[in-house]
Amino acid sequence: MLALGIDPGTASLGYGLVRENGDGSLTCLHYGVIRTKADTPMPQRLKHIHDELVALIERYQPDRAAVEELFFARNVTTAITVAQARGVILLALQNAGAPIAEYKPNFIKQAITGFGAADKAQMQEMVRLLLALEHRPRPDDAADALAVAIADLHSYRLAGVNPM
Amino acid sequence: MLALGIDPGTASLGYGLVRENGDGSLTCLHYGVIRTKADTPMPQRLKHIHDELVALIERYQPDRAAVEELFFARNVTTAITVAQARGVILLALQNAGAPIAEYKPNFIKQAITGFGAADKAQMQEMVRLLLALEHRPRPDDAADALAVAIADLHSYRLAGVNPM
Repeated sequence: MLALGIDPGTASLGYGLVRENGDGSLTCLHYGVIRTKADTPMPQRLKHIHDELVALIERYQPDRAAVEELFFARNVTTAITVAQARGVILLALQNAGAPIAEYKPNFIKQAITGFGAADKAQMQEMVRLLLALEHRPRPDDAADALAVAIADLHSYRLAGVNPM
Repeated sequence: MLALGIDPGTASLGYGLVRENGDGSLTCLHYGVIRTKADTPMPQRLKHIHDELVALIERYQPDRAAVEELFFARNVTTAITVAQARGVILLALQNAGAPIAEYKPNFIKQAITGFGAADKAQMQEMVRLLLALEHRPRPDDAADALAVAIADLHSYRLAGVNPM
């Protein structure tokens, strides 16, 4: 079972590919960020994000995909911009045909650390341990995306044990 | 010169295709709405919007495209949803290769009626007159999209007369 986790953004979109093995252990296959430049027109930035994501999906063929839900309390303009990127992300995932889940930030934290109040460094250290990585994944957006993928595998496993 | 105007939305996206003829008169080629159902998962709705828009672009091959800018003062949740649709709209337009413009609602009103305080009925009546239509275009989202296309042709003409 291979999950693609995505931390949506326009300047920097984080992605992480995590495989759950037969014994329940997790393996990190790949992670990184898709970057676009602020001085590039938005339609071009959206196309770049979409095309890079489509290439990633074609290469790894994930079984599931998950995207962090928008948290837009602070800055509406930023939220609008991220939502536009989210639109092309969801389109690419829908075209890939894999099931798509969306999780709130607190759900993701709880899936990783067991409680929602973990700070960023704690989260990244847990992600490192769960994936048996030598170093904490960088940059932050990629680490966040790996957390989304892990949360998705966690959620899928729970649903299998206790289907609703 | 054929302009495609778009009034972005998720439940109902308005579109309008307006041609400026050699004598400066305007002809409406087509208008309508792309609808999606609220109980359909968002990724599927975004895919439907994107695919319908791509088919429309392939059929009419517009020279220019214009999208109304988001006005998000009232409801942030709605703005986020519309912004996601806007993302796939901009992607489809970028892939089509036509120049893309974005206009604020007040700019569009001024381009149609000469002053920004026109109400919806006045706007629709002006659009009807400018396009020599028998009846006011319906529904509202399609009429708004025709106004966007007219504003875009207006803006393009002004830029040609007085290039910046």
